[in-house]
Amino acid sequence: MIIVGELINASRKAIREALEKKDRAAIEQVARDQAAKGAHYIDVNAGVFVDEEVELLTWLVEVVQGVVEAPCCLDSPNPQAIEAALKVHRGTAMINSISLESQRCEALLPLLAGTDLKVVALCMSDKGMPETTEQRLAIAEELVGLLTGKGVPLGNIYVDPLVQPVSANQSFGISFLNAVDAIHKRYPEAHFMCGLSNVSYGLPARSVLNRFFMAMAIAKGLDGAIVNPLDDNMMAAIYSAEALAGRDNYCLNYIKAFRAKRLGV
Amino acid sequence: MIIVGELINASRKAIREALEKKDRAAIEQVARDQAAKGAHYIDVNAGVFVDEEVELLTWLVEVVQGVVEAPCCLDSPNPQAIEAALKVHRGTAMINSISLESQRCEALLPLLAGTDLKVVALCMSDKGMPETTEQRLAIAEELVGLLTGKGVPLGNIYVDPLVQPVSANQSFGISFLNAVDAIHKRYPEAHFMCGLSNVSYGLPARSVLNRFFMAMAIAKGLDGAIVNPLDDNMMAAIYSAEALAGRDNYCLNYIKAFRAKRLGV
Repeated sequence: MIIVGELINASRKAIREALEKKDRAAIEQVARDQAAKGAHYIDVNAGVFVDEEVELLTWLVEVVQGVVEAPCCLDSPNPQAIEAALKVHRGTAMINSISLESQRCEALLPLLAGTDLKVVALCMSDKGMPETTEQRLAIAEELVGLLTGKGVPLGNIYVDPLVQPVSANQSFGISFLNAVDAIHKRYPEAHFMCGLSNVSYGLPARSVLNRFFMAMAIAKGLDGAIVNPLDDNMMAAIYSAEALAGRDNYCLNYIKAFRAKRLGV
Repeated sequence: MIIVGELINASRKAIREALEKKDRAAIEQVARDQAAKGAHYIDVNAGVFVDEEVELLTWLVEVVQGVVEAPCCLDSPNPQAIEAALKVHRGTAMINSISLESQRCEALLPLLAGTDLKVVALCMSDKGMPETTEQRLAIAEELVGLLTGKGVPLGNIYVDPLVQPVSANQSFGISFLNAVDAIHKRYPEAHFMCGLSNVSYGLPARSVLNRFFMAMAIAKGLDGAIVNPLDDNMMAAIYSAEALAGRDNYCLNYIKAFRAKRLGV
């Protein structure tokens, strides 16, 4: 499972304040904590600072990469911010995200063409958000076609089938899960990357729903997610589901997590 | 989700002692508790008392049905015990279970022929336990063929694809899950019924694995299970997964479980 640590996001108060004060130590600590708890990528997002995003995203990359080996997941809808951040990034970054929205797509495709960058392919288009399994698969197919046409290898594409809340429409959860299944079968070499927590929007005890949804998605083939790696209950879902899905040799990661008291029990 | 309450099983010390002392009040309490927590069937098992099983299973049915409306799930490999228990059972019992083991199969088929009984079809044969998805599907097909050939409607058949521990073979979990998917697609009208806890045998923090495996199986189409309905963490998995799989109208059962403080949070 590819874990992207989600905590360095300016929509969180602590991070917004750290960005306002250019508090390097605060960002460094959150980067270190997430890497220590198993994050393979550190997501960096300065999206709330619209006018300064180019500068702040670049600053975040420099600060994070000063203290951890893990590459960054450059999280922005703004191609200029991504381009600037890439200039300072060491190693192979993940771009979060391209979509079929024409403006974003046209600006990002040339940046990705012929590179070894990882890219999140978000199932969203100018027509808005997909609702059914079939709509998600159709957008994924179009995005994969565009990216591979530009020389991006399938193995560098991380499809995000777009989670929507079951409180809005009770079919949204299963449509997403079946899209994971369908995309996994269509492109066994491609990967997934997504945040799952929107599924529980509007319902009580959201963390309970989120962790079970993670296990259900892993059963369908999900192999990457943007999560809080410091949340032991969520990590318990991931370690458990990986062992139960036959993706953890001799259940060693699960047993290690148990010994480290990271299963929430 | 069809919930069979598993607690009245003579392999549990408290039940064994209650059976030895014919302690009617103790059995009644366990039956009442399970029905109150949402069990649709009350499993009754006196299997450890080999020589007295016929008498004790019958006694259990009488005691349980004296205090709850829920029908029983008659849990025995012994056709004589099932036949005797059926004579005193009111309403429509579930038989747990028929299998392709020839002795059990030949004795139970005539009992089931032309009745409205529910029956658990356990994916086991004289060749032993299936290991792969394909082996499970093949046994399920043979059992469904035999049962429907005797007039048992598909909707009364509850397939148990047989859970085996991932500690013995790391593919056992996903083979089971994919069998649920395959059987569900082959027989959309049939149901499932099984205990899941064997999956975690030999591993630490078994209850954590068991509850995530439940959510994963529901994602694949599982619609029935033998569980402890008094285990709030397991029931949280069921309520959550049902809501996330689009099987809980307006998430009402989930919200009700939250209000009743039954989500373990």
